[in-house]
Amino acid sequence: MPRGRGRAVARRRRHHGGLHRVRSVREGLPDRGVDLTDVAAHRGRGLTVPEDAERTLINQLTAGLRSQRNETGFVSDCAVVPFGAEDLIATVDGFAQATHFPEGVGAEGAGRLAAGAALADLASAGADLVGVLAAYGIPTDLDRATVVALGEAIATRVETAGGEVLGGDTKPREELTVTVTALGTCPSGEAMIRTEARPGDAVIVTGPLGGAGAALDRIREGGDADEADPLVPELRLEAGQVLREAGARCAMDLSDGLADAATAIADASDVSVQLEADQVPLHAWASGIESGLAHALSTGGDYELAATVAASETEGLLSALAERGLEAAVVGRVQEGAGADLVREDETIELGRGFEHRFATE
Amino acid sequence: MPRGRGRAVARRRRHHGGLHRVRSVREGLPDRGVDLTDVAAHRGRGLTVPEDAERTLINQLTAGLRSQRNETGFVSDCAVVPFGAEDLIATVDGFAQATHFPEGVGAEGAGRLAAGAALADLASAGADLVGVLAAYGIPTDLDRATVVALGEAIATRVETAGGEVLGGDTKPREELTVTVTALGTCPSGEAMIRTEARPGDAVIVTGPLGGAGAALDRIREGGDADEADPLVPELRLEAGQVLREAGARCAMDLSDGLADAATAIADASDVSVQLEADQVPLHAWASGIESGLAHALSTGGDYELAATVAASETEGLLSALAERGLEAAVVGRVQEGAGADLVREDETIELGRGFEHRFATE
Repeated sequence: MPRGRGRAVARRRRHHGGLHRVRSVREGLPDRGVDLTDVAAHRGRGLTVPEDAERTLINQLTAGLRSQRNETGFVSDCAVVPFGAEDLIATVDGFAQATHFPEGVGAEGAGRLAAGAALADLASAGADLVGVLAAYGIPTDLDRATVVALGEAIATRVETAGGEVLGGDTKPREELTVTVTALGTCPSGEAMIRTEARPGDAVIVTGPLGGAGAALDRIREGGDADEADPLVPELRLEAGQVLREAGARCAMDLSDGLADAATAIADASDVSVQLEADQVPLHAWASGIESGLAHALSTGGDYELAATVAASETEGLLSALAERGLEAAVVGRVQEGAGADLVREDETIELGRGFEHRFATE
Repeated sequence: MPRGRGRAVARRRRHHGGLHRVRSVREGLPDRGVDLTDVAAHRGRGLTVPEDAERTLINQLTAGLRSQRNETGFVSDCAVVPFGAEDLIATVDGFAQATHFPEGVGAEGAGRLAAGAALADLASAGADLVGVLAAYGIPTDLDRATVVALGEAIATRVETAGGEVLGGDTKPREELTVTVTALGTCPSGEAMIRTEARPGDAVIVTGPLGGAGAALDRIREGGDADEADPLVPELRLEAGQVLREAGARCAMDLSDGLADAATAIADASDVSVQLEADQVPLHAWASGIESGLAHALSTGGDYELAATVAASETEGLLSALAERGLEAAVVGRVQEGAGADLVREDETIELGRGFEHRFATE
């Protein structure tokens, strides 16, 4: 499948200082390393060109992921495995205390965060949750209450979402880690993936953005535990199912920011995605600060969903989401072309990937 | 379900020096921590009584595992999830360089070991392999070739066994780790579990034992890389399927030794398991050394299967396994009663759990 980069599309390219400033914000972010679901899409993009060794590593580690990638990159946040009359949806996410659990989140919040982030991948497929397997790495000198609180929070969150903890493992480790494998189901062939955006589609997000970035700002400035609240993702499994049932076939979670998602969807679907700055709904904490939009676009840590749907479906879909208490919004459109842009006032700003994969760049 | 401990069974209890000596051998073993599939069965057994804090931890972390445990402990190495006309079989295992990959195994061997150990749990259920998700923790200063070799070995092993790498994740970590989630299928209700041993059954193992322990001995004595060979488990997925199709309903892998498996099966099935010392097949490296039987019983690291089958089925089953090149053997029988014993010459020796879970005891 051609990347579509060859098609000339008349666009004004102006790199706006406000967007470039975003990068420094990200220094305070948990280091998420390279999620294999994002690596291939990241390659060859020119933002950060991995060294040969890293390319080799990435190629080798992702070579077998036939259900998640095509020749141009990753097409899904999850593995989609035909399983009888349904598809099994599977995803794995690793978390570590030092890099994923900001101070102030606490063990209970960390468990909610880990479960929420893993379930966000299922949500982006529109899956029904079956359950999770949780593999812990536990420092032998760690206060056991911390581990118990972490495990309970994961179990509670999974059970609240209608699943169960199916299995697990504990091992002694130097740092506290938990690796969450989330399993779900979708009607056969209906899992939302990245390749299905079509010109004419509207781009919908399921809730206000930028809260996680704003929370990181506050924590860096010495905020107390409450400041970490927006870092703990809300569950969007039901929202994903509503999107899927309404006919959406293309979605991602916004863990790495809206710019990242727009770019990934544009590349995977061989289309252009145009976002409207003034339509991006901002979290209450992000709406009053200068970096609010930048957080929404590029800081990541928000786990709302972005989906593309036929424009004729948007009104009914927004109503259906609103009935479930979700402040969903149309934030842009899909067009012929390539790449992702942000329209702000009279400018059109080209968006790159929102998240610098440190593993690939260090 | 009563544990059956209340039933008086006339047995001579003599703790044999040769078996107790085994414990020191284990100091050189990879530290496997607490596999949640083993923890509950381990509790209250009197060998090593966890402190209150550890009990709380274990209770909390395992409380949700409804598909894997009953009120007395773990009944399965895997989660068994009804999924349409089949059962989904899922298991997760964490590995770390410092604790699981003995020097000499190398990155390629480590990948084979990690995949083999995770697939052994599926094999113990008699499952057909679907695939694995592999979540890596990678030190940023690690030679990338090491990670590539590890990942390639996992992929190759999984593909050789008829599965595929379905997904994954990489994160920066202080030490090299890989967490392998293995997924498979079984015909509905046919997965082998630990509760189904019945008096009159024979106990079968799928191959010679003690090789892993003997290999650890050699490595400690300064052996070269070749000495690590028996630490890399053979795949027994086909053997598990043959056992299941022949009607076996109770099996475990021998990762923690034959004594551990016999005790776990006896407890879960509320029966007595009696092993015959002179029928335990020993790996070539273990058969000529004094600690050979002790390695087979208690060192662990062998990943053959132990299963119980109706005595009338054993002859045909041994033939079917032999046709597949497996040196399977009958090593004991299931009786009314409780606990596991080893009959050696004129002694009957009570067996405890083969593996001291360091996390629970430190």
